[in-house]
Amino acid sequence: MKITEDGWFRADVPVRFRDIDAMGHAHHTLPLVYLEEARAAFWRELKGSASVDAIDYVMAEITLRFHARIRFPSDVTVGLAVRRVGTKSFTTDFEVRSASGELLSSGTTVQVAYDYTAERTKAIDPADRAILERWLTAGNSSFGSAG
Amino acid sequence: MKITEDGWFRADVPVRFRDIDAMGHAHHTLPLVYLEEARAAFWRELKGSASVDAIDYVMAEITLRFHARIRFPSDVTVGLAVRRVGTKSFTTDFEVRSASGELLSSGTTVQVAYDYTAERTKAIDPADRAILERWLTAGNSSFGSAG
Amino acid sequence: MKITEDGWFRADVPVRFRDIDAMGHAHHTLPLVYLEEARAAFWRELKGSASVDAIDYVMAEITLRFHARIRFPSDVTVGLAVRRVGTKSFTTDFEVRSASGELLSSGTTVQVAYDYTAERTKAIDPADRAILERWLTAGNSSFGSAG
Amino acid sequence: MKITEDGWFRADVPVRFRDIDAMGHAHHTLPLVYLEEARAAFWRELKGSASVDAIDYVMAEITLRFHARIRFPSDVTVGLAVRRVGTKSFTTDFEVRSASGELLSSGTTVQVAYDYTAERTKAIDPADRAILERWLTAGNSSFGSAG
Repeated sequence: MKITEDGWFRADVPVRFRDIDAMGHAHHTLPLVYLEEARAAFWRELKGSASVDAIDYVMAEITLRFHARIRFPSDVTVGLAVRRVGTKSFTTDFEVRSASGELLSSGTTVQVAYDYTAERTKAIDPADRAILERWLTAGNSSFGSAG
Repeated sequence: MKITEDGWFRADVPVRFRDIDAMGHAHHTLPLVYLEEARAAFWRELKGSASVDAIDYVMAEITLRFHARIRFPSDVTVGLAVRRVGTKSFTTDFEVRSASGELLSSGTTVQVAYDYTAERTKAIDPADRAILERWLTAGNSSFGSAG
Repeated sequence: MKITEDGWFRADVPVRFRDIDAMGHAHHTLPLVYLEEARAAFWRELKGSASVDAIDYVMAEITLRFHARIRFPSDVTVGLAVRRVGTKSFTTDFEVRSASGELLSSGTTVQVAYDYTAERTKAIDPADRAILERWLTAGNSSFGSAG
Repeated sequence: MKITEDGWFRADVPVRFRDIDAMGHAHHTLPLVYLEEARAAFWRELKGSASVDAIDYVMAEITLRFHARIRFPSDVTVGLAVRRVGTKSFTTDFEVRSASGELLSSGTTVQVAYDYTAERTKAIDPADRAILERWLTAGNSSFGSAG
């Protein structure tokens, strides 16, 4: 179980050469790609679901801050913590750190549950909500050890 | 000259098949790539500089909101407006619209001038500042018609 | 109609900043992305079909040669010509040229018709075959002018 | 040391969600990206050089065959073997396999040493040549165990 007592889920992601742009650092969209890998790892681990079909939300809003340039070759560690669980949407904070712990990027994303067939937002699935709410209270409770 | 009287610079960007992810829409990082194309077009047009070497700033912060899914094939129009010019940084608003004018994505980016040799932030180059300040006041002045 | 008398279909594709890698040129996968845009434009124009669902083949084999580095900013022109139409597969030659006509990349791709539901290869759809065969003989016939 | 007695260097690469295209499998350019990660790992391990500046060759020709679709989430293993070392260029075979050993993609790439300052091909650096030649004969010799 990778959720720590303070409620952060962490996953390591290797930086690829293709991530690096003409300025010699990872293109500024890459923290979001690293975050996506951590988010997928979270759902795989918590929900036990691995397939792309299981992803039934879309991005509503992203805030992304850049603290240091990301270089190749390296691994980054993405931390992910849930901050709010609403009826249709949930909010997560994230940070991307170097192997030595330096803060590289940080931010917040808001996801909204989405019915891809009807092409409209929907209420968060109860099973997903239960996972998110357990995660939300992980910092205060036994989530980490019970997971 | 593509800066309109209200201070928006606009550029069209074709969506690529490769932009589309497994969910059938442009991956959520793509609005930033479309925006980057518009920003590069802005500098080429205003500064007359085309080379990658001319780009001497880094991203400091991005806020990105998603209003509608972006599909393939299509062209999007990116609008870009400067909102603040500081000593070292400048702030721009952007919006991505479909060919029919539907708002697809919007947001704000903060760029900070960067010395790639010294690897630290720097004051905005005076020539760039002059361009940005003319653009900032474009909505109230003759910038659009004089450009 | 963009198929010339010698049987080449041509489409222009703008190079993006994000295409450029740490070595200062378009990453070596990008000619295939530019080619894909031309191929999609071909099907849109010839078949009148715009949707992703209409693409029912997979890549079987690619040969790709690099003649010159691709820079940003620039537009490239992708030429595409069909060389063989089999029962299940068809072979196309391609070339990527700069705006001034310099040959940048060239190669050959073999596509095989694919049933995404059954997850196996299939015979080329008769309507697609008719388009490909007309294109194949375009160099010798009135295809270009009749299109 | 990851070069086996038969002369193959192998590296694992995690597939990312962003690699998957609208057809539900890794876009057909991705085997080349996975290969690139293995090639970079090879140079890091054999040359002890980690920086992007150390990469002083360009792609000359690629042949790429597709055997099975690549899915998310999964790890792939890229195998890399040198087949020919010339004055200016060297040829490598590669294969991409699933975790269970299924062959997903295979092919051959030809790299040519390149002087990025003079912007022309050059002879392979002697130290790199020594590494490549030791690797070339690895299947017949003690390279694997001596590395």
